[in-house]
Amino acid sequence: MRTPRVVAARRLQRRRERDAAGLFLAEGPQAVREALAAAVVQEIFGTGNGLTRFADLIQSAREGGARISEVTDEALAVLADTVQPQGLVAVCAQQPVPLEKALGRGPRLAAVLAEIRDPGNAGTVLRTADAAGAGAVIFAGDAVDPYNGKCVRASAGSLFHVDVVRAPDPAAAVEAIRERGMTVFAATGYGDTDLDALADAGRLATPTAWLFGSEAHGLPADLLALADARVRVPIYGGAESLNLAAAAAVCLYASARALRRTSE
Amino acid sequence: MRTPRVVAARRLQRRRERDAAGLFLAEGPQAVREALAAAVVQEIFGTGNGLTRFADLIQSAREGGARISEVTDEALAVLADTVQPQGLVAVCAQQPVPLEKALGRGPRLAAVLAEIRDPGNAGTVLRTADAAGAGAVIFAGDAVDPYNGKCVRASAGSLFHVDVVRAPDPAAAVEAIRERGMTVFAATGYGDTDLDALADAGRLATPTAWLFGSEAHGLPADLLALADARVRVPIYGGAESLNLAAAAAVCLYASARALRRTSE
Repeated sequence: MRTPRVVAARRLQRRRERDAAGLFLAEGPQAVREALAAAVVQEIFGTGNGLTRFADLIQSAREGGARISEVTDEALAVLADTVQPQGLVAVCAQQPVPLEKALGRGPRLAAVLAEIRDPGNAGTVLRTADAAGAGAVIFAGDAVDPYNGKCVRASAGSLFHVDVVRAPDPAAAVEAIRERGMTVFAATGYGDTDLDALADAGRLATPTAWLFGSEAHGLPADLLALADARVRVPIYGGAESLNLAAAAAVCLYASARALRRTSE
Repeated sequence: MRTPRVVAARRLQRRRERDAAGLFLAEGPQAVREALAAAVVQEIFGTGNGLTRFADLIQSAREGGARISEVTDEALAVLADTVQPQGLVAVCAQQPVPLEKALGRGPRLAAVLAEIRDPGNAGTVLRTADAAGAGAVIFAGDAVDPYNGKCVRASAGSLFHVDVVRAPDPAAAVEAIRERGMTVFAATGYGDTDLDALADAGRLATPTAWLFGSEAHGLPADLLALADARVRVPIYGGAESLNLAAAAAVCLYASARALRRTSE
């Protein structure tokens, strides 16, 4: 049974509808739990089985004022991207944070995803940035919508932990970040500085924003030029390069380690 | 036109046929170039366009004794996994290296993929291990076939750079590695030791094999017990964990950095 509510929620699979409504879908119990903790859940669709199995979540959603709608397996499948959403899909409010507000909180680590179009990559980097202790992840320029279903899923809940910022103009965002006193490093396979050299020189032990570009095209020239340094992850073997998720993990964790040592 | 040769090559998309023939498929000019450098190419299928565009590769393949078969766009599409293999697919000889031989070469860094079933993950970790300078990547137990098309593609050529080892018995492999004097670290979100602590204590500056398990199930208990230490990547933010590719990148690069310092 595709009820009118299911039909309306399903529209949120399209970016235009998400932008217009300021809503998005999060599926599966882990994401729903994180969304509830972030107090952004408006409605939960669940199969009979899902509602019973995750009764604790449903109870807390009800107490938070969310609407609970029982739907058929078929209707849930229509709402979900994955084959097995374990019987739950939530409609959540988007809560992007304006850049100035996110910077005002003084994050010691941030990631800027410039023109990254692949939602799985973007969500994975978001998750890694959260794990490394980043306070803000900035989706800059023509990047994927952070509320895209695949991005939400790949973020594994991290979308609800960090300040998610949308910055239509990447160069202006980089300038705003630098004005706040953060160092800006551009991750690029063609960097003139090596990550190990930066770490050895103590240059990572300062509030830092990392710029990451798409796997296909890298970072645009104007952003490379704006950064304080263009940094390559050293390649010790025969590989030509790392993929985006691996390179981001190495860079963000090099910063996290250096920042941890400073704060001790 | 699906010629008999195309039909035969297409069978290599199935593991059983790959195992029986000792062959596999590599698609696209980058993979073909690396396969030629590794001298494992037996035959190249190319569209008219692909053969012209990559005439240098074809010339060097001919000189190496490979057979060149021109095929239609439709036949190439049948052989390829990707939408755009850029007109080239090569039939290559598998060259797995026996564990003892790979260890006999004295690698300072190795990765063991234990029961990792996802080919994209396995290929990505293989690529990252190569970039970090690993000499061997060991596919242990019921892991994915390293010559699976998706794994070959995700490895971005690294399959041709490192010793690819198949070890049906993961525990026996770990014991063989330890007998060679390598330290074995198991990467696990539930580790009793933290990667930073290992680095601070200088424990990474020694020949090391990293064990990685599947994202869904982690490492089996017997392998965790066999390792010299169970190591977690520190989580500084709200994320519960890192994904496999990110965790592997952080661990392998922590080792690479420590080993580089020792060798200086």
